Amino acid sequence: MTTDIRPVNIGLIGLGTVGGGVVRILKEHHDDFLRDQGVDIRLVACASRMEEEAVALGVRDLFSFDGSDVINNPEVDIVVELVGGTGVAREFVYAALESGKRVVTANKAIMATCGHDLLGVAGAKGLEVAFEASVGGGIPIIGALRNSLIGNRIERVVGIVNGTTNYMLTRMGESHLDYATALAEAQANGFAEADPSADVGGADAAAKIAILTTLAFNTEVVLEQVPTEGITALAPIDLEYAEQMDKTVKLLAVALRTPEGIDMRVHPTMLPKAHPLASVSGVFNAIYVVGDAVGETMFYGAGAGSGPAASAVVGDIIEVAQRITYGITRPFLRFGTEQLPLVPSADVVSSFYVRLPVPDRSGIVALTAKVFADNDVSIASMMQGAADDSDGTAQLIYVTHPVREGALRATLEGIQATGVLTGEPVVIRVENP
Amino acid sequence: MTTDIRPVNIGLIGLGTVGGGVVRILKEHHDDFLRDQGVDIRLVACASRMEEEAVALGVRDLFSFDGSDVINNPEVDIVVELVGGTGVAREFVYAALESGKRVVTANKAIMATCGHDLLGVAGAKGLEVAFEASVGGGIPIIGALRNSLIGNRIERVVGIVNGTTNYMLTRMGESHLDYATALAEAQANGFAEADPSADVGGADAAAKIAILTTLAFNTEVVLEQVPTEGITALAPIDLEYAEQMDKTVKLLAVALRTPEGIDMRVHPTMLPKAHPLASVSGVFNAIYVVGDAVGETMFYGAGAGSGPAASAVVGDIIEVAQRITYGITRPFLRFGTEQLPLVPSADVVSSFYVRLPVPDRSGIVALTAKVFADNDVSIASMMQGAADDSDGTAQLIYVTHPVREGALRATLEGIQATGVLTGEPVVIRVENP
Repeated sequence: MTTDIRPVNIGLIGLGTVGGGVVRILKEHHDDFLRDQGVDIRLVACASRMEEEAVALGVRDLFSFDGSDVINNPEVDIVVELVGGTGVAREFVYAALESGKRVVTANKAIMATCGHDLLGVAGAKGLEVAFEASVGGGIPIIGALRNSLIGNRIERVVGIVNGTTNYMLTRMGESHLDYATALAEAQANGFAEADPSADVGGADAAAKIAILTTLAFNTEVVLEQVPTEGITALAPIDLEYAEQMDKTVKLLAVALRTPEGIDMRVHPTMLPKAHPLASVSGVFNAIYVVGDAVGETMFYGAGAGSGPAASAVVGDIIEVAQRITYGITRPFLRFGTEQLPLVPSADVVSSFYVRLPVPDRSGIVALTAKVFADNDVSIASMMQGAADDSDGTAQLIYVTHPVREGALRATLEGIQATGVLTGEPVVIRVENP
Repeated sequence: MTTDIRPVNIGLIGLGTVGGGVVRILKEHHDDFLRDQGVDIRLVACASRMEEEAVALGVRDLFSFDGSDVINNPEVDIVVELVGGTGVAREFVYAALESGKRVVTANKAIMATCGHDLLGVAGAKGLEVAFEASVGGGIPIIGALRNSLIGNRIERVVGIVNGTTNYMLTRMGESHLDYATALAEAQANGFAEADPSADVGGADAAAKIAILTTLAFNTEVVLEQVPTEGITALAPIDLEYAEQMDKTVKLLAVALRTPEGIDMRVHPTMLPKAHPLASVSGVFNAIYVVGDAVGETMFYGAGAGSGPAASAVVGDIIEVAQRITYGITRPFLRFGTEQLPLVPSADVVSSFYVRLPVPDRSGIVALTAKVFADNDVSIASMMQGAADDSDGTAQLIYVTHPVREGALRATLEGIQATGVLTGEPVVIRVENP
């Protein structure tokens, strides 16, 4: 029964490590997919900037330097976009849909900025845009939210979705490396790019939580709406204090359903060691999901790398190919069809760890403590770190009781205004069990 | 576009906690499923032994005491079997397929004993048997193996798939409870049944790994083929020694692809603390999967309970309903279409922890060590536990280097033959990083 089915033709734009992985899997598993999945997948066109990539993969005969050739190829049913970024890749994806082709993409930047519009355009034409690889590498979180967990009202999605920063924080914690050394090590190991700003600044994680939020809560959000803090200000001393509190510092991407709307943000967090996410170390990613029926679940795996991403892309290709083979034309999935309010970050209540670099002299505690009091920010504990003899700077560490972020911000401004700080204050949210 | 679609009618057999959860979710989310999933799901019939369950759920008008009424109801498209066990439930499932109805089941016993045949019968008729809830409660492991990870050659599946034993082992480890106390506590908390033999003996975990193995490696295996050891012989001292070796004791359900075939088993294992499964505690389940492309992944969640199981059942109902709505008739999934050899457990190589209860007198170490040597079982370490003054019994603990299980068994027989043992030896596999 799988012999008389029509082939599904794939056009691949981008032949880097992920694209290469996809080509290899489609070759290796063609017969399995035909026998077990009922789809006859054929790669009929590919494009990249470097012809040698096509030669190395043995697909020189299908190769073009111009992605448009793939999109305009009448034989192509599914365009697989692995270029990345929001420039030409975005044009490719829209052009593919315009020409009636399905799209599989690993592009988080596109999905986090115009995913809602893309799904709308696709849906109106009875086409699909599949994007499992855009979040969490090979972790099948998109599929789980779309299918297996569909009976749930999702209450929270909390993820460690950036391997670079998780690797750096793991190393800073276990080996007391400073930020610069941890970054250099990550770059040396190929876990961080030459320009790491999107990772360490939190933008990468923000794009991913925007996608997960849109899907999990069916409300349209875009990258720009995610309040984002990175890890660039963190020092080993912060991880040591976390350890003292039996907590681990993680860069979390958070989306919570609240009575006031969706509370969504990216920032470093001191997480209780008992939390399932606390033991996710190194370059691994994990997404923790709480649904009203299923309760707590967590999905763990390699968040980056050619193999994991290729695994996710191929999973999408098979699903879209089956829809073509079966002639399914109804919209692929809901993606932000509602408009839930977003909770202003100033209104979000949390405990905070605040480290203040101050001169090593008396009166500073009283001076700064007064500013907390003036802003009705209740102090849970205060610790004074040893002074750095080289410049006589001491570290004053406050941990607050749960307080509105707005009040904490006002407190920091007040302390800045006293002119007592010798450096930037460091703020880390503290999650209590 | 979702208004002109035909309704999909559900018949539910079994209205216990899981069935009740399914009824509630189908009611609550009917409009979401219609709008977002394109399926119009309607409960048209249900059966259970207790009418009051139907009354409590407000479905008295659909109720019957006889499951056959549900199966024979011409309106029913999908029969949801939540009776459990291999008796009448098995008959219901076959009868449903015979009468041309699709099946969604949470029944691990059926799937682990005649799942291959059931899928065959269903496939021949263009029907489906969906069983996400049969393994790992609400954890979407079946869906992940069937869909998202389909581009992978699965190399290993290792699961903590029994919440009762994981709860007991967690408590024995953290609070040094003995086996009987831990079991009593589990029963008091509703985590263990009055007759816990299927859980503590490992049969429950064996059924689940049989299902996962069949799916992950596409090779037919049944419950009876799984070499199974439970946790009934374990004592706090064993968990303390594991702690000394920086390991955690877990009841693992294992399936590995090897050059000789599939190595499948269920037994307590000393797992390095750094392993992702080591931090899965209490009643939680987790399934660790390694694929050639995706690498290491893990799926974590509540392995039991009405909510999680209902979440999985509803996910299956939606998928099957979509296949009906779209008129898809090709076989649902491959399930053991190949016949890979199973590695005889005697040939499996592992390190072993062996605890020998012996009289507290000299010469015993030499006597027992000689038997290890005679069987070419290399000893990695030996520890002598403090004697129990009450009966003068000492605990002799050996940890072996990797060795064939057959050689270890011969060693134990040899030691038994010396007549020196004052109790049953305890054997736990030791997994090294």
